[in-house]
Amino acid sequence: MPADYALDKAAQDLLFRSARTANTFTDEPVNDAQVEDIYDLMKWAPTSFNQQPLRVVLVRSGQARDNLVSLMWDNNQEKTRNAPLVAVLAADTQFTEHMPTQFPVFPQAADVFFGEKQVREESASFNAALQVGYFILGVRAIGLAAGPMSGFDVDGVNREFFSDGRHRALAVVNIGKPGQDAWYDRLPRLGYDQVVSTV
Amino acid sequence: MPADYALDKAAQDLLFRSARTANTFTDEPVNDAQVEDIYDLMKWAPTSFNQQPLRVVLVRSGQARDNLVSLMWDNNQEKTRNAPLVAVLAADTQFTEHMPTQFPVFPQAADVFFGEKQVREESASFNAALQVGYFILGVRAIGLAAGPMSGFDVDGVNREFFSDGRHRALAVVNIGKPGQDAWYDRLPRLGYDQVVSTV
Repeated sequence: MPADYALDKAAQDLLFRSARTANTFTDEPVNDAQVEDIYDLMKWAPTSFNQQPLRVVLVRSGQARDNLVSLMWDNNQEKTRNAPLVAVLAADTQFTEHMPTQFPVFPQAADVFFGEKQVREESASFNAALQVGYFILGVRAIGLAAGPMSGFDVDGVNREFFSDGRHRALAVVNIGKPGQDAWYDRLPRLGYDQVVSTV
Repeated sequence: MPADYALDKAAQDLLFRSARTANTFTDEPVNDAQVEDIYDLMKWAPTSFNQQPLRVVLVRSGQARDNLVSLMWDNNQEKTRNAPLVAVLAADTQFTEHMPTQFPVFPQAADVFFGEKQVREESASFNAALQVGYFILGVRAIGLAAGPMSGFDVDGVNREFFSDGRHRALAVVNIGKPGQDAWYDRLPRLGYDQVVSTV
């Protein structure tokens, strides 16, 4: 275990300090092998009871892209139209189906802890959101830029891409190499003392 | 912008592949400067409208630690008692107070998009969960191990640590250098085809 050293400065910059939400992209395609590389990194980051509720729909066909664009708000439409790859990220509220294989140390967890619909759905939303964060950093880790967006018609996206009713769309993420004027001005961040306190 | 290269293998291992949830820790303390280092990395990762709803309470005093331990489930109690540092991570449902300084490009966003309580609370929960993910990877980035836990009395923790009623506890994270027998056996992960589909 590499527990004694920290990430070097270039890697810190790549993931956190210099990385930015991209609003434009080059035409260079993003292929499935790259998405596999992203997944093969981010899948290892932790979730409660190893539940892994995140599901990803890659929007590649022209018709699916058109439908998604029409469900995005305002200037997210143009970004979503032009990105090399767009991924819809959602929570599978029936993640418990996989617990017998994914949490074999206590396979009854599905019933014991997540038998109640509300508890199961809240857990799916929280843990899939964790995984959205891991996914964004995974995109950056393989040298691409992410353009995550929350401004879209959630019910419409659920109907269009998850007709089974068990999924909840959480974010739409544009992926590619950053293009011309890809960044807005950097926004500030809250100070340490505004976020962290001690008891 | 370092957009052309990917994170090297050692850094990928540190953050994702080799990193594990630690269940025991050495006695080596975790000081405030290290928590500042974690924050100074994770704060840059993106949230919707730059809302940054995550709040962190570091539990250092003996009494506060005892109170927190009593609110943890089962074997999370011992882990929480013995970790060098324990952080309670929560969502500030009134993050909108900071939007005039944090989202100056459209300061009306607080009212226009987040005027409704339910929308505001859902957005706080989603974005704070993203930031919990960033925080866990930030802990790893500075060379420490994280032990995130969701098994605790959420209402009790809210009452004990957030008596103002505006915060929602999301996770409790033990932080330190991994100790003896720190890891359980690695659990499996869902396959790419179980998680990613294409339309």
